Amino acid sequence: MNILLTNDDGIYAEGIRVLYESLKDLGSVTVVAPDTERSAVGHAITLSDPLRVKKVNRGNKFFGYATTGTPADCVKLAIRAILRKRPDIVISGINLGPNTGYSVLYSGTVSGATEGAILNIPSFAISLATFENPDYSVAASFAKKLARLIMHNKGIPLGTLLNVNIPAVNKKNIKGVKIVRQSRTAIEERFDKREDPRMRTYYWLTGEIIKSDGQDDADIEAIRNNYISITPIRCDMTDYGFMEELKQWKI
Amino acid sequence: MNILLTNDDGIYAEGIRVLYESLKDLGSVTVVAPDTERSAVGHAITLSDPLRVKKVNRGNKFFGYATTGTPADCVKLAIRAILRKRPDIVISGINLGPNTGYSVLYSGTVSGATEGAILNIPSFAISLATFENPDYSVAASFAKKLARLIMHNKGIPLGTLLNVNIPAVNKKNIKGVKIVRQSRTAIEERFDKREDPRMRTYYWLTGEIIKSDGQDDADIEAIRNNYISITPIRCDMTDYGFMEELKQWKI
Repeated sequence: MNILLTNDDGIYAEGIRVLYESLKDLGSVTVVAPDTERSAVGHAITLSDPLRVKKVNRGNKFFGYATTGTPADCVKLAIRAILRKRPDIVISGINLGPNTGYSVLYSGTVSGATEGAILNIPSFAISLATFENPDYSVAASFAKKLARLIMHNKGIPLGTLLNVNIPAVNKKNIKGVKIVRQSRTAIEERFDKREDPRMRTYYWLTGEIIKSDGQDDADIEAIRNNYISITPIRCDMTDYGFMEELKQWKI
Repeated sequence: MNILLTNDDGIYAEGIRVLYESLKDLGSVTVVAPDTERSAVGHAITLSDPLRVKKVNRGNKFFGYATTGTPADCVKLAIRAILRKRPDIVISGINLGPNTGYSVLYSGTVSGATEGAILNIPSFAISLATFENPDYSVAASFAKKLARLIMHNKGIPLGTLLNVNIPAVNKKNIKGVKIVRQSRTAIEERFDKREDPRMRTYYWLTGEIIKSDGQDDADIEAIRNNYISITPIRCDMTDYGFMEELKQWKI
């Protein structure tokens, strides 16, 4: 099995190293990841700048390719320019912090897997729902299990990827796996208005508190209740339900 | 009516000026847009840097606020920090170039409207399907018509936005309006591998030829056939169809 790994925390992040260690006995693993953190880049690609690729060692051994691009750039570059064989699966992560609700739209981690799905390769994103003292072991072993399941038994429809979130608890406290929708959360955020040393105003996004919509079939609730959440994400964003209604409008 | 305009071609682009001129007799129009071009930024937001806001004149008159952020940042900043009243509608455009098929996922223009939808404001993105000799007049008058229709008669479901593309032909050659899905196109792209003057390799994304999937109920075909296309886009990206199947997997 040829496995492509990327992330948005950068190639030197702990999450992608643990993921690599966990997956390497499943087949040939190639890492192509951003050279530094690229969080909240959405599904950005780089059109106006050249992209550089550099081989990176970790622990005195070749680890993978660092690029100057976004996670989506990394997947494109890997498939179109770096890899000799097309990967059988693309995995993005393990992200430090959850990617749930509308945050999915802002997530660089998810966008790495989205790019895989656009290129018709089975793909998933995996995130650990904490920002502090991460223990990636449950996420890493679940990634291995899921990769094996996707490759050997099942499959994902073209244009769809899986978004996986792992609660930050010990393995024995995980209650199971839930297949859930993306939560329609209200995002509570504000801007800090500050002055720089030259008395010029600047703004900084802050105060992002996520309020759940209180329905328990969604990603945020699943994580809160110590379930691993899996949400299938579709690259076709058409609102088919509203499409029919819109056809009745006299435009 | 309070109207918020943004774009990804930057506040000095012709498309947003024409849009402003067309909409200003519908109500109070505020422009908050990136200070330079931010194409293919996806739904990026700026977390690691401060954001600056600057008043901008065009033709010796105050035109709007330029920010150092992405289109999504602009909409957040407008609503959370700049505007006194919450806008009744968010319009992003008029983009130079189409936003159809999977390009919707990479589009800064669409992401401006997506941010509006996330914040529960009726929103649409509007793009002109050409990169050369743009004539924005049809797009501008259609934006006005659609804004009026949304505000006075209809409405858009929460969490959904409209993605509008205008064929680059004279008004008399436009055949009508089609409500269509996002095309599932194959994107043909490759990287140019080059050497810089110091003999170091770099890559540049190129060769993006969009192949349509040949079904005539999708955005790319509608535009090709000289119809204005409108695709409702859902911020909830859950693949509900596959969710049920995935529940049968033994994970």
